[in-house]
Amino acid sequence: MNKTIQTAHGAGGKKTERLISDIFKKHFDNPLLTSDDAAVLPGFEGRIVTSTDGFIVSPRFFPGGNIGRLSVCGSVNDVACMGAMPTYLTAAFVIEEGFSFDELETIVRSMAETAKEAGVVIVAGDTKVVERGQVDGLFITTTGIGTLPDGVNIAGNQARPGDAVVVTGDIGRHGSAILLAREDFGFHTDIESDDAPLAHLVRRMLTVSHRIHTIRDATRGGVGTVLYEIAKASDAGIRLMDEDLPVAPPVKSITAMLGLDPLYLACEGRLVVFVPKADADAVVAALREERYGENACVIGEVVSEHPGKVSIVTAIGTERFLSAPAGELLPRIC
Amino acid sequence: MNKTIQTAHGAGGKKTERLISDIFKKHFDNPLLTSDDAAVLPGFEGRIVTSTDGFIVSPRFFPGGNIGRLSVCGSVNDVACMGAMPTYLTAAFVIEEGFSFDELETIVRSMAETAKEAGVVIVAGDTKVVERGQVDGLFITTTGIGTLPDGVNIAGNQARPGDAVVVTGDIGRHGSAILLAREDFGFHTDIESDDAPLAHLVRRMLTVSHRIHTIRDATRGGVGTVLYEIAKASDAGIRLMDEDLPVAPPVKSITAMLGLDPLYLACEGRLVVFVPKADADAVVAALREERYGENACVIGEVVSEHPGKVSIVTAIGTERFLSAPAGELLPRIC
Repeated sequence: MNKTIQTAHGAGGKKTERLISDIFKKHFDNPLLTSDDAAVLPGFEGRIVTSTDGFIVSPRFFPGGNIGRLSVCGSVNDVACMGAMPTYLTAAFVIEEGFSFDELETIVRSMAETAKEAGVVIVAGDTKVVERGQVDGLFITTTGIGTLPDGVNIAGNQARPGDAVVVTGDIGRHGSAILLAREDFGFHTDIESDDAPLAHLVRRMLTVSHRIHTIRDATRGGVGTVLYEIAKASDAGIRLMDEDLPVAPPVKSITAMLGLDPLYLACEGRLVVFVPKADADAVVAALREERYGENACVIGEVVSEHPGKVSIVTAIGTERFLSAPAGELLPRIC
Repeated sequence: MNKTIQTAHGAGGKKTERLISDIFKKHFDNPLLTSDDAAVLPGFEGRIVTSTDGFIVSPRFFPGGNIGRLSVCGSVNDVACMGAMPTYLTAAFVIEEGFSFDELETIVRSMAETAKEAGVVIVAGDTKVVERGQVDGLFITTTGIGTLPDGVNIAGNQARPGDAVVVTGDIGRHGSAILLAREDFGFHTDIESDDAPLAHLVRRMLTVSHRIHTIRDATRGGVGTVLYEIAKASDAGIRLMDEDLPVAPPVKSITAMLGLDPLYLACEGRLVVFVPKADADAVVAALREERYGENACVIGEVVSEHPGKVSIVTAIGTERFLSAPAGELLPRIC
């Protein structure tokens, strides 16, 4: 019989102990992860960066990833986007009674592998088991902690006219992969989520430019939403070149067919980067030498016109405003 | 009409922006909470402590507290139990579509008030809105960060024979309050949850003793479960004096009536503290001068007999082992 999680696994007694040792400690084991309710982390100096993110995704497994990998990448990337080096992660699980032990272990194993790839250590956790129907399978909330090097000052409100807008790879993959995994459209594609930990890209960019103004991962709401947020926060205009937008052919087909804009499909492994044009070539060249950065390119610029708005210039030279993000996203993915 | 949360509030567009500004920013506002996906926290040196905890409680409002206050106290207290001073908190919300705006604001306001009382600043957050049925109303996951003073070394594996076991107040209140709020037993009591932020108690204890070995908050599983965990982690025996256990009369009545042991009912505002007997009187006296510590007392001692087990000595002098915590807790509270 397939072993499942029972409410007793969350009650704090022997079964909880066993769940923790058989799954969480087994895969997350490290000297900082103790049986105390909090972790002691040594050696800090100066500024730290922290970010928290809750993950629920349906389906939990999709081409290119799963909720576990997603939950590690999400917080790691949010910390990295401030220019910080993510070092530690906490993970809180809410598990529905009846959840498969094997599936949980697969997810936890994937978290451990992704944490290793990302260079972070999982130092504290929490497990709650809730009754059937109280949660749809599994929620994971992660919190990342990183150290911020002296002199680094990157934020969403620092985009300036004259900046180039760089994206670290082709867009809309994660959203498309989830959409296709969820609905049966009657055809098959090989689109995989771009889901990846990206701190190494940030580290590399910082070695070639000291003038990076803004970095943001284009998750919920996709590149379009993130650009609107930055345009607003920085009170600057953003102009995209339609023909420079990197969209993989299968993503292009799917979105055309379904009437979706790849700019509003989530990525989980893509950064948008704002850097003065003079440094943009060096940043793009450096990104292209790194894993997950091979297809980095410039997609637009920051302009002093239309502050707070994002425009797009078509191949034939006409310029229109990108519609502002509002309301329901398709597909619903976090 | 009562305004409710819709899925669009979690989609990252204008409605999300409004939800964040109307509720979260309004109550959590501080200079470190920016529109970036991560917070930059200045001025660290040395060791930090972090802890994460997920909160789901039914009912969400109960005598003496609510899920919001609980979610702040939980992580603050876990950080404090390592001897650290909690300074920052992150909060991730998973909200069911249709959830009342007013109720959310009441909960968020309570979090802000509790954070202020606890001396922590909420620096980063996340909001996910899920479809009806995907979550039972509201989950909150908080992560606390604190700084650990030099020389402080408190952990669950440091209890030593010769230690006194101190509890900071009467036990079993939170569990009883939840139980009574959930079920209609046909009578009324005035039991309130003990739910409270306790970092000031830890700070105070550290001023009167440099030999505190272990501090733990007696949440899930109550004092009994926590004592078993410490006995095991420290490979030491614990002996409780039954007549010294502080249990408020209404809690005593309820538990007697329902056949429950107050030792296994959750507290959310009580610490168990292990300190050499020579320092115990000073610790208890100091605790009694502080809010939430007025009823502190010694309830037992650490012994070299029966390592890993907890015994209890009755008023007539007989000694028995406290049954080890296992399986289902009553009531299910986190």
